[in-house]
Parts: sequence; structure tokens; C-alpha cells
Amino acid sequence: MELRARNIKLTLAYDGGAYHGFQRQENAVTIQAVLERALGRLFGGFSKFAASGRTDTGVHACGQVVSFYTTGTIPTERIVRALNSLLPPDIVATEAEEAPLAFHARCSARSKLYLYKIQQGDIPDPFARQYAWYIRQRLDLTAMNAALRCVCGTHDFTAFQAAGSAIRNPVRTLYRAECQQKAEHSLEFLFWGNGFLYHMVRNLVGTVVDVGRGKYPPENIARILKSRDRHQAGATAPPQGLYLKEVRYTDAVEETGN
Amino acid sequence: MELRARNIKLTLAYDGGAYHGFQRQENAVTIQAVLERALGRLFGGFSKFAASGRTDTGVHACGQVVSFYTTGTIPTERIVRALNSLLPPDIVATEAEEAPLAFHARCSARSKLYLYKIQQGDIPDPFARQYAWYIRQRLDLTAMNAALRCVCGTHDFTAFQAAGSAIRNPVRTLYRAECQQKAEHSLEFLFWGNGFLYHMVRNLVGTVVDVGRGKYPPENIARILKSRDRHQAGATAPPQGLYLKEVRYTDAVEETGN
Repeated sequence: MELRARNIKLTLAYDGGAYHGFQRQENAVTIQAVLERALGRLFGGFSKFAASGRTDTGVHACGQVVSFYTTGTIPTERIVRALNSLLPPDIVATEAEEAPLAFHARCSARSKLYLYKIQQGDIPDPFARQYAWYIRQRLDLTAMNAALRCVCGTHDFTAFQAAGSAIRNPVRTLYRAECQQKAEHSLEFLFWGNGFLYHMVRNLVGTVVDVGRGKYPPENIARILKSRDRHQAGATAPPQGLYLKEVRYTDAVEETGN
Repeated sequence: MELRARNIKLTLAYDGGAYHGFQRQENAVTIQAVLERALGRLFGGFSKFAASGRTDTGVHACGQVVSFYTTGTIPTERIVRALNSLLPPDIVATEAEEAPLAFHARCSARSKLYLYKIQQGDIPDPFARQYAWYIRQRLDLTAMNAALRCVCGTHDFTAFQAAGSAIRNPVRTLYRAECQQKAEHSLEFLFWGNGFLYHMVRNLVGTVVDVGRGKYPPENIARILKSRDRHQAGATAPPQGLYLKEVRYTDAVEETGN
């Protein structure tokens, strides 16, 4: 009997709090390492493992996507439940499907959505401390949304890239960037773009929050963007507020500007 | 200058996940130990520390109440913020007031409210794992509420007390006991009573969940209650779903039966 190779597309949610980021590394527990161990047990073997991208230490995901080839024989519809019985409770498979052999979790990705959660109020919520950035000072939502409009569209985002990043093409397109009030003491940023530089979302949030605090006017964001100088932008927002929400594999162009 | 003693009533919220329960003990980190250290730093000294009651290892609180005497001079309205700067982020002071000298957090308590959260659905939520009990199997809400109606009122709750508990008066009154659907995959039990035996809420939840699973009919709860036999009741529900929501210091009698 010839073994047929399947290309499995797997969607994951995880609480990144206990991990040194997604990507496998020596001497540190990462999500990839824990996931690959479970995949090895479930499928016997697999190859060409790829993820849509890394997430940093402490960053969460609701919709990370990975892909891999396997000749393992477990039916696709049983993968999620079987895998979850092998994974720790802070990493959860939410969906599994057989993808065309040409599908690649990173190379096929067309756009990504990130959320960033902020918690406000005089009294911090002890149950949100690992899942949001707590800022006591009241933030000006209107000013922050004005700032976010300045970064929508196609720009060189060098100013919002981690200092010392390898120089590659720093041009990215943001289809949406906005901040909403979700509850009395809870704000949520949404970023939808065709790609994100290292620390780009957290640097954008840190800078826009400075606008929300009244440190400088929204228009300054356009000036910072033009400067292409990381030192002009605000501090990197902490990791526990960030969520990789969704990876999209269809072209987003027609939705641009919505 | 004579130092005036104040009796401070302090309300707390905490994530119990990292603590060996509320009550101070040797060789274990408890909420009381961490709190008393912060109080010592803030007030210089304090005495007659009392809490409304203990919470077990891993149990949370939104409205735990403690009281203590102090001659420390920090104005009452500044206590919350100052204390929160000394406490770790998983223990938060939410309210402080000066109470009459006769007020005692435990002895003055008239009733308590507990919440118990259950998470349902085929896919467990990695962000809820420390804050709810995950049960994949669909629970019958109507049957569970029928069971809960059997335990409302004044009963000998021996059957729902931790086995081997010191024998004291096991009669308690439950003013309310109900279960609500809060979101698609989220259920919440509410218990309001004049007092609770050791493990009583978690044993009630474990038993009522057995009814929700169809293991036995709601009426069996009345039989279990009458048996006064812990072995008739279901397993103790896990701690991470339980929250001490509120401690009330006014008589609840007139609200009974609402």
C-alpha cells in the first residue's frame, strides 16, 4: 500500500504567557517545540512544518496557522480532538483541514489581523493582567483613531520596526487600523495588513497610546512615519496585550479602504 | 498627640491561581501573607486582622473583605491606590473605608455570594482554562436549575460538606442557587447564602453538573441532601471556576425567596 502524503492546515489558539515565543529555539520552551512533539506523536512523522509567522515571548494567538506534510493516517476530522488530548491546555487546535499540496502557511498568507487589548480604570483587574496592557490614565479614543488613520495604507514602516532589525523591504499595507471601546474599562486595537515588521504592532500601539495620553497630536504619527527613525516613535507596548487573531489566505485588495 | 485607631474595611479581588489559598500557613505563599506584608509596609502596624472567610488553593475572589485596626495615618481615600502599588498584580484592593470599631470582617458578615464558571464547547478556550471548569459534554440547564431549586432554603448540608470536616452546625440557608447561560459556551452558577460549609459550593456544583450530564434526575439532589452522606453527592468541582463574589453585611432575610 502506498502512503498518500496530505498537506494539513492547522489553526491554533494559545496563551503565550508561559512560552518563549512561537519559534523553536535551544534551551527554551516554545510553542513550536510543544506542538511538534504532539504532532510527532499523533502522525508518527511529518515534514515541511511552516507557521504563518512567529509570535514573540508572551504574545497570544486566536488564529495562528501552521502547515505540514504527513503520511499519518488519522482522518482529518479527528485531528483537532486527538491533538488537543496531547497538547497542554494553553495550546489548543481549533481547526484542521487538508489543503492543496501547494499550500504553505507562511508563503500563501495574504494578510493578517492582530488585536491589542488595553485595560483602563482606577482599579486594575487582576484577571486581565496577563491578557491586556493596563493603563490607568484615561486615553483619548478620538485622537488615537485620528492617529491610526495616518498609518492606514501603504507606507515604509521603518520607524515602527524593532531597532536593529535586518534590513529587508520595510513597505507594508495596512487595510485597517482602529481602536474601539469594548467595555467600560476595555479598549481594543485592530490591525489588518498584508504583513507586519518585527514589533510593528506593539510599536504602533505604544506610539498611538502616547497620542491618547495627549503627549503629542495625532498628526505627529505621519511625521514619525516619514522620519523612518525608530527613535521618533513611542515605546514598544508590552506583549501580553497582543493577539494574532487571524491569517487570511485570499487576496484582501478589493476590501481595502472599508 | 494621641494616635487614633481606625478600623479599616478593605475589599479585595484576586486571582487565586498562584496561591495556596487565602489563609496564612508555614512554607506556602498565601494571599493573607502577601497582603499582610503590604499592609505592614503601608500602615506601619495593624492588629485584629480578620477576613470574611478563607478561600482554597486556586479559588478566586472579586469581593473578599478583610478588616483590621491601625493607628497608621494614611488618609482612607488614599489606601486603595497606595496598597495596589505595594501588592503584586494578581491581588488588588478595590475599596477601603473606615468602619465602626465593632465591625469584624468575619463575625459581622450576614451572607456571601459565590460564582462558579463553566466553559463548554468542542474546543476548550486556552484563555479560560485558569478561570473556569471546562466540560465538553453539553449540560442540561433546565435540569440543573431544577436540581438547584431543591437545595434553596434552609437545610442540613452535611452531604455537601468536605468529608472529614470538623462537625459543627451543618445547617445553612441558601437564598438563591441558580445557573445561567452567559455566552454561547459559558455557564455561570450563582450561590447566595448565609454561610457555606467547607467545599460546599464546589460539591454542589459537582453534583448538579452530574444532573446536567443526565447521570441522574434533578430530584435526586433532594434525596442526597436528606442522606447527609457525602458519598452520595458528586465529585468536588475544580477550584479555578470558583469566585467569592461578594460579602454582605446587612441582613438578607427580607430578600429571601426572590
